[in-house]
Amino acid sequence: MLSDIEIAQSAELKPIAEIANQLGISADELEFYGKYKAKLSDELADRVKDNPDGKLILVTAINPTPAGEGKTTTSAGLGQAMAKIGKKAIIALREPSLGPVFGIKGGAAGGGYAQVLPMEDINLHFTGDMHAITAANNLCCAMLDNHIQQGNTLGIDPRRILFKRCLDMNDRALRNITIGLGGKVNGVPREDHFIITVASEVMAILCLANDISDLKERLGNILVAYTYSGEPVYAKDLKAEGAMTALLKDAIKPNLVQTLEGTPAIMHGGPFANIAHGCNSIRATKLALKLADYCITEAGFGSDLGAEKFLDIKCRYAGIAPSAIVIVATCRALKYNGGVPKSEVSNENIEALKKGIVNLGVHIDNMRKYNVPVVVAINQFGTDTDEELKYIEEYCISKGADFALSNVFGKGGEGGVELANKVVEACEKPSAFKPLYSLDLTLKEKVEKIAKEIYGASKVNYTTAAEKAIKEVVALGGDKLPICVAKTQYSLSDDPTKLGAPKDFEITVRDVTISNGAGFAVIYTGNIMTMPGLPKVPAAEKINIDENGKISGLF
Amino acid sequence: MLSDIEIAQSAELKPIAEIANQLGISADELEFYGKYKAKLSDELADRVKDNPDGKLILVTAINPTPAGEGKTTTSAGLGQAMAKIGKKAIIALREPSLGPVFGIKGGAAGGGYAQVLPMEDINLHFTGDMHAITAANNLCCAMLDNHIQQGNTLGIDPRRILFKRCLDMNDRALRNITIGLGGKVNGVPREDHFIITVASEVMAILCLANDISDLKERLGNILVAYTYSGEPVYAKDLKAEGAMTALLKDAIKPNLVQTLEGTPAIMHGGPFANIAHGCNSIRATKLALKLADYCITEAGFGSDLGAEKFLDIKCRYAGIAPSAIVIVATCRALKYNGGVPKSEVSNENIEALKKGIVNLGVHIDNMRKYNVPVVVAINQFGTDTDEELKYIEEYCISKGADFALSNVFGKGGEGGVELANKVVEACEKPSAFKPLYSLDLTLKEKVEKIAKEIYGASKVNYTTAAEKAIKEVVALGGDKLPICVAKTQYSLSDDPTKLGAPKDFEITVRDVTISNGAGFAVIYTGNIMTMPGLPKVPAAEKINIDENGKISGLF
Repeated sequence: MLSDIEIAQSAELKPIAEIANQLGISADELEFYGKYKAKLSDELADRVKDNPDGKLILVTAINPTPAGEGKTTTSAGLGQAMAKIGKKAIIALREPSLGPVFGIKGGAAGGGYAQVLPMEDINLHFTGDMHAITAANNLCCAMLDNHIQQGNTLGIDPRRILFKRCLDMNDRALRNITIGLGGKVNGVPREDHFIITVASEVMAILCLANDISDLKERLGNILVAYTYSGEPVYAKDLKAEGAMTALLKDAIKPNLVQTLEGTPAIMHGGPFANIAHGCNSIRATKLALKLADYCITEAGFGSDLGAEKFLDIKCRYAGIAPSAIVIVATCRALKYNGGVPKSEVSNENIEALKKGIVNLGVHIDNMRKYNVPVVVAINQFGTDTDEELKYIEEYCISKGADFALSNVFGKGGEGGVELANKVVEACEKPSAFKPLYSLDLTLKEKVEKIAKEIYGASKVNYTTAAEKAIKEVVALGGDKLPICVAKTQYSLSDDPTKLGAPKDFEITVRDVTISNGAGFAVIYTGNIMTMPGLPKVPAAEKINIDENGKISGLF
Repeated sequence: MLSDIEIAQSAELKPIAEIANQLGISADELEFYGKYKAKLSDELADRVKDNPDGKLILVTAINPTPAGEGKTTTSAGLGQAMAKIGKKAIIALREPSLGPVFGIKGGAAGGGYAQVLPMEDINLHFTGDMHAITAANNLCCAMLDNHIQQGNTLGIDPRRILFKRCLDMNDRALRNITIGLGGKVNGVPREDHFIITVASEVMAILCLANDISDLKERLGNILVAYTYSGEPVYAKDLKAEGAMTALLKDAIKPNLVQTLEGTPAIMHGGPFANIAHGCNSIRATKLALKLADYCITEAGFGSDLGAEKFLDIKCRYAGIAPSAIVIVATCRALKYNGGVPKSEVSNENIEALKKGIVNLGVHIDNMRKYNVPVVVAINQFGTDTDEELKYIEEYCISKGADFALSNVFGKGGEGGVELANKVVEACEKPSAFKPLYSLDLTLKEKVEKIAKEIYGASKVNYTTAAEKAIKEVVALGGDKLPICVAKTQYSLSDDPTKLGAPKDFEITVRDVTISNGAGFAVIYTGNIMTMPGLPKVPAAEKINIDENGKISGLF
């Protein structure tokens, strides 16, 4: 089979104006970025705001193996399959981050015959949204350090600065740094840290903001530091929010692209799914619902992270509700969850499958708690055996979930017809979406509810530091916010080695912070990496471009 | 009078396709970035490559006051004026950097009625070129530190890393930092420095590269570090150049915009004029020459810095020659050079003018050394008196230069008609451009030639460190490269307080480095800032955007 980039480069793209036209969007309502990418204008959003909403379909997954389960591929393929069965669908995804593209992943726009195009552009700068977020974030940091340097009238304590610089790069050397060295004219020395751009609160805010005024207000509300006397300092105290918003004036507009089969795809925003909420922007999803009968979106990592946050944070803030949830699983990952080492997941192993399938079971049970119909999509591999697949199907049905095989990677939309039919049926079933918890619960009650009802923990422990942090967050009004748990994606627990459906485990909360602009409290369990590193042989070493501008090495 | 941004926002822009059409460019040869910006495709460059070249006009200046003399404004206005006198002209300028926009300057797309539009976009992200350069630069840095972390098979000495991280931000706290702190998994601790993106060698390379293959080769040739045994390490040793070039695949394409009066303007690249060569890209200038009868371009700071480098580095590498040089001066700056404090330059003062005009005299003499006709353009202010202007005119004519008043700031193209006529006449005069020095001279001989013939120095001194550095640069083959002197822009000497036409002064070279990818040796005199800081009240505090997306506070 051809590589992803070979498939992408052999595709004939339609002009983006033609894709837009399928959705009833005129060229005047687009802001073109070359021939195959466009931003969707505010005028468009305004014109369609009274259209009826389409059905919202959330694509999530079981706890992934390090290679991922293929959520983006399944989402793109499901969109393509919808067209095959005569349905008008649109895909609403996150945009990739350069850091992972140059690190291990190589690309994040789907794979095989279920990709979003132009994949090279999408995986590199796309329409510049990430760079705009980086610039807005770092402007605030420069203004903060400059404020201290120029007399520090706010009395900011350099030991208690919370807001960090960012880059869209996997650069471990910037995790822990000291800045402001070199004497009086070169700033005030202090400890600092770079995070990857997608981990920035500015990214989370961009994805949760309703409009430009809301964006500005949220940016101004970012808690950036404390003063020597322990008072909070917000971005608006630095007068940073106006210029930050100006930097984001285009980034807030959703981007329109297309799949390999010409399905419209909106890619916009991409916050981390651990310290942030892991979904594309509210503006993109709401607009997509106005433009098609089915809007397929996804949330990061497994359903314990991305989907929980999609449902409890994003849907709540946006006032939207899914009509169906698709859980993507692979036969390989279920065997992996049953204890088979990664190198042997290609071999048939019914016993391991039976042992590991409990992981899928928990994800089905969890999603059903939100009162939304669930469809399990098995992202097929050639090594899956009939007996294995049969077993999974029967298991899903016994759990009250629908089931479909999906081979969109190998066959494109054709390979997703069964899944598309099941999803359309599921959307017609009664559903009564409600979030898992009420905002009136205390922070600890919310943590308890998620830990016990979603993760299956028996108890939640708090370190002394976490107890102290909770008091501070509560003092800032954080008790009434939804919570965003930062946790490993590899296990339902906070220990990445506990596979399957761990029981009788405890969760330890080691810190709590407030993302006051985004509007959630972050609950830290385990060690969460906010600045990845490059591997021994980075993908970047193989990325190249020839004299005609043709790129290779993205996959 | 209205502010710059008020004038810009009240203008009715033409669709960029219409501007392109004036130049015989079809919409298919454009890559649109919204309605009013476009990148010019490689196909266009290819189609017009055999067109005859237009006349090249370089706009430079005397030693500026801190406010600048109005080179960009004069360039934009001269382009507008060319249309008024029936000439087909195009402007080829540098693109602004975000750092200064948020610092003191507030904007860098001309001023008054001689501006390039859309000024908000141009001053913010424009088409993302700066961000692409930042990403390419920092990818190389991340790969370098990752190489050390992952075993350091090249034997890179962490104490001798030359290539620095960059951000397009004025952020003094990042000038001197330590990175890689926090223990084994977080990198190898070392000293590091951020520079502003426009000071990066990647920017210089983008502006000097002929095509994508040349770009990749030059990026690979960047000297990034030395090994423990003193051997040079290049970017290609890290296998970084392919991915860096892929990141720059769009940034290498020139950007087309328009002036307030619809004159086509190509804005592309913007390297520092001290540690780099200070001109827009070779690709942009060469393409502009193919598209119009007159191409107006500019170079940074005064003629001792930007123009010297334009003529000795850029023209040499590009194989192009100017037909006329415009030296922009203001009556105010000439009085300032005559010793009048900044607060009093608005008052008539013939004596100070007579004293300070020697600065203009040196710039005229210097430019005439390149065998190109010179026109002095006085960028008029309302406070200039007739007697003052008359005196300047007579002085210029006595020096063999043409003279014109220019009021493009206040009147747009109409205010530049006299200048345009003088420039067109100058272009018809005989000229026989030749660079100041031969590449066969040694580095020290080249420095001596520029120091004595352009700056007027009596002698060049070298610190011990500089002597050692020269040996290293020569060992790397740097002796045959053109040189790029990093020097204060406020004086012809290396001391910013020496105004007018200083005499009997010595220049001290304190370091020499090789920009091996860009292809020049950098000669450091005085203290050169490669990462600016924000002022006490940054322009960013006043930049804002309203609920309709209308930006204010740029000027």
